[in-house]
Amino acid sequence: MAKVKKTPRPKAETPKGFRDYFGADVTERKAMLDQIAEVYHRYGFDPLETSGVETLEALGKYLPDVDRPHAGVFAWEEDDSGWVALRYDLTAPLARVAAQFRNDLPFPYRRYAMGPVWRNEKPGPGRFRQFYQCDADTVGAPSVAADAEICAMLSDALEVVGIPRGDYVVRVNNRKVLNGVLETMGLTDEEQRADVLRTIDKFDKVGESGVRQLLGKGRLDDSGAYIDGVGLSDDQAEPVLAFLTSKGDTAAKTLANLKGAIGASKVGEEGVNELETIASLLDAQGYGPDQIDIDPSVVRGLGYYTGPVFEAELTFEIQDEKGRPRQFGSVSGGGRYDDLVKRFTGQAVPATGVSIGVDRLLAALRAKGRMGGTSLGPVVVTVMDKSRMADYQEMVAELRNAGIRAEVYLGNPKNFGNQLKYADKRNSPIAVIAGGDEFDAGKIQIKDLILGAKIAESATLEEWKERPSQFEAPRDQLVAEVRRILDQN
Amino acid sequence: MAKVKKTPRPKAETPKGFRDYFGADVTERKAMLDQIAEVYHRYGFDPLETSGVETLEALGKYLPDVDRPHAGVFAWEEDDSGWVALRYDLTAPLARVAAQFRNDLPFPYRRYAMGPVWRNEKPGPGRFRQFYQCDADTVGAPSVAADAEICAMLSDALEVVGIPRGDYVVRVNNRKVLNGVLETMGLTDEEQRADVLRTIDKFDKVGESGVRQLLGKGRLDDSGAYIDGVGLSDDQAEPVLAFLTSKGDTAAKTLANLKGAIGASKVGEEGVNELETIASLLDAQGYGPDQIDIDPSVVRGLGYYTGPVFEAELTFEIQDEKGRPRQFGSVSGGGRYDDLVKRFTGQAVPATGVSIGVDRLLAALRAKGRMGGTSLGPVVVTVMDKSRMADYQEMVAELRNAGIRAEVYLGNPKNFGNQLKYADKRNSPIAVIAGGDEFDAGKIQIKDLILGAKIAESATLEEWKERPSQFEAPRDQLVAEVRRILDQN
Repeated sequence: MAKVKKTPRPKAETPKGFRDYFGADVTERKAMLDQIAEVYHRYGFDPLETSGVETLEALGKYLPDVDRPHAGVFAWEEDDSGWVALRYDLTAPLARVAAQFRNDLPFPYRRYAMGPVWRNEKPGPGRFRQFYQCDADTVGAPSVAADAEICAMLSDALEVVGIPRGDYVVRVNNRKVLNGVLETMGLTDEEQRADVLRTIDKFDKVGESGVRQLLGKGRLDDSGAYIDGVGLSDDQAEPVLAFLTSKGDTAAKTLANLKGAIGASKVGEEGVNELETIASLLDAQGYGPDQIDIDPSVVRGLGYYTGPVFEAELTFEIQDEKGRPRQFGSVSGGGRYDDLVKRFTGQAVPATGVSIGVDRLLAALRAKGRMGGTSLGPVVVTVMDKSRMADYQEMVAELRNAGIRAEVYLGNPKNFGNQLKYADKRNSPIAVIAGGDEFDAGKIQIKDLILGAKIAESATLEEWKERPSQFEAPRDQLVAEVRRILDQN
Repeated sequence: MAKVKKTPRPKAETPKGFRDYFGADVTERKAMLDQIAEVYHRYGFDPLETSGVETLEALGKYLPDVDRPHAGVFAWEEDDSGWVALRYDLTAPLARVAAQFRNDLPFPYRRYAMGPVWRNEKPGPGRFRQFYQCDADTVGAPSVAADAEICAMLSDALEVVGIPRGDYVVRVNNRKVLNGVLETMGLTDEEQRADVLRTIDKFDKVGESGVRQLLGKGRLDDSGAYIDGVGLSDDQAEPVLAFLTSKGDTAAKTLANLKGAIGASKVGEEGVNELETIASLLDAQGYGPDQIDIDPSVVRGLGYYTGPVFEAELTFEIQDEKGRPRQFGSVSGGGRYDDLVKRFTGQAVPATGVSIGVDRLLAALRAKGRMGGTSLGPVVVTVMDKSRMADYQEMVAELRNAGIRAEVYLGNPKNFGNQLKYADKRNSPIAVIAGGDEFDAGKIQIKDLILGAKIAESATLEEWKERPSQFEAPRDQLVAEVRRILDQN
C-alpha cells in the first residue's frame, strides 16, 4: 500500500443512523432471544444463519432501477461478485437458501433466524439502519396446520419472555376471505382491487367511518388535505366494511358473519374454512381466544400475504411521550406467502412464518418492568498498596472461583477516591479494601455500597451507627461475607 | 420505483466467499461463545456490540490509497455518510468507542465483543469473507496486572469450553525484552530493526538455524529460491537467537536467561520485570506453568504489540489431511498495544486484549470429540389420517409442554414412507403413529428410530423379536413412553 501522508484526526463517530449497544442492552436482548430460541427449538425449528452480504439479484425485491440502483439497501459492486448488498430482512435469504438447498434440506423445512438486518432508510428517533429481526418460518407445508403452529409458537414465545396471558393477543385473519368478498362484490379490476387493499390498510388509523369515506368519494384528513376515494358507491363498499367489522363474541359467530360476507365465492369459502380449521386446531391444543383469536379487523400485511395473516398485539397500556395512556400495540406479524422460492426455481413452494420486532418487544418488557432494572456490577477489590497486587489478584481469583463476578481495580491506584468513583460508575455492590494494617492482621474491610447509598440517602444517625456499611472481616471469610451481602440484595 | 421488465431467474447463490450455517453449526458455536461470555462476565468484562458498518476513516488501518480505495475491506460510498465499510475486526470499533465515549465509560474499561467481521480477501478452502471473532480487551489500565488477567481469563475460557489442562498452554513473551536485546546489540537503524522483526516472525516456520541464516547472509528456502538475509555477522545475530531460545525449565531460569540477553538495556530490564510480575501474579492465582508460561519463542505479533504478547496453543495432536500427526496449534493471540485511541484524540491510552479464533477453537473441540456428535432431531408425530390433525396437534402439544422437542409432519401425508424418510433426515429419535384403529382403541404406536437403525444394522432375528423397535402404548402414556425411550439414548 502506498504510504499515506499525515491526515487530520478521524472523527470518533458511527456512520449516520448506526449506534452502539453497551452492557445490559446486549445481555437483555440476548436473554430474550435465547428464551425465544428455546421455544422455536422445542417446536422442531432449526437455526439458520446466513451471512450479512447477499447478491443483489438474490435479494430481489430491490432490483436495480435506473436512477437509484440501491434504493432501500446498502449495496455496492465487487469485481468478482457483481452487485452485492447487506440483507434487509431474514426472509429474502431464506428464499435463497430454500432454493439453493432444495435437494438437501428436509421438507417441510422449519427454520428460525435471529440477527441484524440493514436498511438504507432515513434514520429517525428510535429508527436505526441496523437492527435485529427474529423470524420463524415453515417452508413446504401447504396445510394451515403450519399456520396454526406458528400462531401457537408465537403465543408461547410471548409468554416465555414475560408477557403473561391477558396482556397480549395473537389475531388471525385471512387474505382469501377478503378475496372472496371482493369477488362477491364483482370487483375484478386489478387496479381497483389494489386501491381497496391500500384503503383497508388504513383501517387501523382512520377507523370504520374513515374507510367508508375512502372507499367512496374521499376524505378530509387531519392535516386538512383532501384524499381522493376509490369511488365505490355506499352499497358497493358495504361488503368490505362487513368483512372488517365481522368480529363476533365467539369464533363461531365471527365465522358465521364472514360466511355472510363472502356470498357464493369459492375462494372466500376456502378462506373461512381455513380460519375455522386454525381455530379448531388451536382449541385442541388448549389455546383460548384470549391468546389467539380470529379477527378480521387485522389488516396489516393483507396486501402482501396470500392466506392466513397474523399479528401479535400487546393489550396493556403504557403512557406515551405526553403522559397519555395508550395500548402498547403490535410486536409481531406474519402470514402465508406461497411464492417464496418461485423467483429462483419457477416452482411455487408454500411458506408461512412470523417475525418478532426485537426492539419493540424489548421495549415492552422494559415498560412492564420485566427487564431493564439496573444490573449489578462486579465486586471491586481496591488497591491500597501497589506492591500487594498479587494478594489482590488472589482475592479476586477466590471470588471468581466461587462464581462471583469480581475484579481488581486496574487504573492508577494513587487516588483512592477515584477507585470508589469507579466502583460507583460500574454499579458495584461491594468494594473490598485492604492496606498494610489489614494484611498484617489477616483482615479485610468490606464496604457494602448498596447499603451505603441507602444510608446516605435517608438514614438517621442511629441507623447509621447500627448498621455500618463498612466492616472488618477475617481474610479467610472473604467469599462468605461477600456472598452474605450479595444474598441480601 | 420504475417497473422492471421480466429478467432471467436470479441465481440462488451466496456471493463468492460467503456461506450459510445450519442447525448444529449455529447452536454449537453459540454454546461455545455463551460459555466464554460467562467467563468474561465473571472477570468483570461488559459486552459491547457495535454495528457492522463503520466510517472508513474510523476503521483507519485501511486508509484509502489512490488505486484501490478499499483494499481488504468491503467499502462503499453513501451520500450522507461518505465512505463506509464493514468492520474487519472488533478492535478498530473498540478504539472508536473508547474515543467517542471517553467521558462516559468507566476506565479502566473492560469489554468483550463477539460477532461477525468481514474481510475482502481471496477466499479459499475454510477461508470465508465473513467469520466470527471473540475479543476481550481492557482499555486504560497501564499495569501488567491487566495483561496477567487477560492470560488467566483466556486459560479459564479454554478450560470452560472443554480444552482440559494439559491440552493447551498460554505462552507469554514481551516486545520490550526484544527491544532491549536490539538496543544492547547497538541496532538502532529503524529499517534494520524492522528487518530483524520480520525475520523473527519466521521463527515458527524456519526454526533456529533458519533464523540464524536469515539474520546473516541469507537462506535457500524449500522452493529453491534464495532469500537475502539481514546481513548481520554471526556475533551480531547471537543475542537475538539467545533471546528466542532463552526458555528454561522454570520461569526463573527463563527470566535469568533473558536478563543475560538484554545486557544493560533499560527497556529490556523493564520488559523482563514485567514478565516476572506477570509470572508471580499468575502464580498467586494458582495458575501453573503448564497453563500459562513465560516463553520467548512466541514471536507472533511481536512486531505489532508494544509490551506483553500472548498466544494460546493447543498441544494435542490431530491428523492432517494426509493422516500425519501434527499439533493442533494456535487458537488465540493478543497483547498490549498502547496507542489504540491516540489516532482519534491525540492522547495515548494503554490497552491490552486477546482475540479467540472462533472457528479454529470450534474445530479443535470437534477434533477432540467434545462437539459435533450428531444432534438428535425432534420427535415426529406422523399423520395417518388428515382429518385427525387436531388430535396429532394435541399429542405434539403434550410433548412440547413436557419440554420434549416435537413436531407434527406437515408435508403431504399421502405417502407414509415419505414421512419416515423425513424423520430420518431430521435425525428424529422417535416417530409416533396413530391411525383409525389406534384412535378407536385409545392407543398409539411408538417407533424407536435409533433402536430401529441399530437393529437394522446388526441384530440377529432373535434380538429383533426380543426388542421390537415399534410397540403399542396407551394414548395417555405418550409423554411417559417417549421420555423413557429418550432417556435410554
